[in-house]
Amino acid sequence: MKHQTAAILVIGNEVLSGRTREANAWLAAQRLFDLGCRLQEIAIVPDHLEAIAESLNRLRRQYDAVITSGGIGPTHDDITMAAVAAAFGVPLVEDAAIVRIMEERFGPEGLNESRRRMAQMPEGARLIRCPKTIAPGAHIDNVYVLAGVPEIFASQLEAILPDFGGTPYMRREIEVPLRESLFAQGLEAIQQQFADVEIGSYPSHCTHPASGKICLSGRDTDRLEAAESAVRAMLSTLPED
Amino acid sequence: MKHQTAAILVIGNEVLSGRTREANAWLAAQRLFDLGCRLQEIAIVPDHLEAIAESLNRLRRQYDAVITSGGIGPTHDDITMAAVAAAFGVPLVEDAAIVRIMEERFGPEGLNESRRRMAQMPEGARLIRCPKTIAPGAHIDNVYVLAGVPEIFASQLEAILPDFGGTPYMRREIEVPLRESLFAQGLEAIQQQFADVEIGSYPSHCTHPASGKICLSGRDTDRLEAAESAVRAMLSTLPED
Repeated sequence: MKHQTAAILVIGNEVLSGRTREANAWLAAQRLFDLGCRLQEIAIVPDHLEAIAESLNRLRRQYDAVITSGGIGPTHDDITMAAVAAAFGVPLVEDAAIVRIMEERFGPEGLNESRRRMAQMPEGARLIRCPKTIAPGAHIDNVYVLAGVPEIFASQLEAILPDFGGTPYMRREIEVPLRESLFAQGLEAIQQQFADVEIGSYPSHCTHPASGKICLSGRDTDRLEAAESAVRAMLSTLPED
Repeated sequence: MKHQTAAILVIGNEVLSGRTREANAWLAAQRLFDLGCRLQEIAIVPDHLEAIAESLNRLRRQYDAVITSGGIGPTHDDITMAAVAAAFGVPLVEDAAIVRIMEERFGPEGLNESRRRMAQMPEGARLIRCPKTIAPGAHIDNVYVLAGVPEIFASQLEAILPDFGGTPYMRREIEVPLRESLFAQGLEAIQQQFADVEIGSYPSHCTHPASGKICLSGRDTDRLEAAESAVRAMLSTLPED
């Protein structure tokens, strides 16, 4: 059974301090949408063990699956594996297979304490391997622990996406050069007719000349097209702004 | 007393579906950092009343203040004011001052039901006015309810930032063309010496040629400079990668 709902937990002081614009949750949101898995929450928390463990426990109980991003490298601020272990109440254990791969790559003297840190996994976790790095992510129960470096996150994400899905969503967008207040009532009436189509209005500029988009998404092509036609017909009856 | 810690609650299906890349929390993160207010969590939830109210109640109890973004327009998917009212257990009430301003702008016949919706505020809320729109945000207790349209969010944010602050943070960045595993132990030793400086390592490319940055942030210039010197000295002792 594939995961139908998901949350993303981003671990990163660099995002909370405004230094880095978040990119991994954004990528995962797009991929999950295309697969038909409903992303229900994104949470971004600091590099702090209790904060990570507490958020993870909340999210993994609430949704089918949780994808985490960040904090699995070799430096002192990489504490996600320890936090995941704490959340599950299991110890961190060194994975012999990773140590062996690192020894092959770096030689026995190249395998310093920091690299060894990256071989530590929550007990019971399955490794998530990807072509971009020898350091693996971890999969434990319904939690997927991925890297924060975007290139590696993207590669690990592709490795786990077969576990996620459902009936894919489709999306239609309609450009609307009108203030929302002119079509809000008409749009609400259409939303009430089409409970299985999610209709949202996203203004990009609110004052004259107003601009924005109406977005429709749903899983049934016929219903989506019918809702789109209804919105276009409703808009065509309105006077110019 | 200014708010020393904060959370941001983004309301938006468009972010969770990957349609829109989040921008408002990113802006607020930068501004709060510069002011010395510690942003502790960003949460992104759907346009769903119970989800918004539940997240808001969790965050407003945990941090000094919460800034919300999105869902305060005139369309059916704009339910943030109702969710905030539900979270505080107060009714939504029509604000006479906003209705009067809208009547002046649009004339009595232009004040349709949708626009009137934007005059509804949680009882007890103070209006947040900004130059970019006549539709106000709301301030109730330690919660600031702002718009989702980036231009309006930015303008409303400036209006509320005087309530936030502390001793401003400063940041230093050091470019590091080395794999993290080569300097992780040295960096950890420095972090232990400088508990009042936050030291993070952010690789952008992990395999050869590796690249990344070490970031230091803190509130005391002398300590920050001493920590930066210690990191530079440590790095200078390492062989090239």
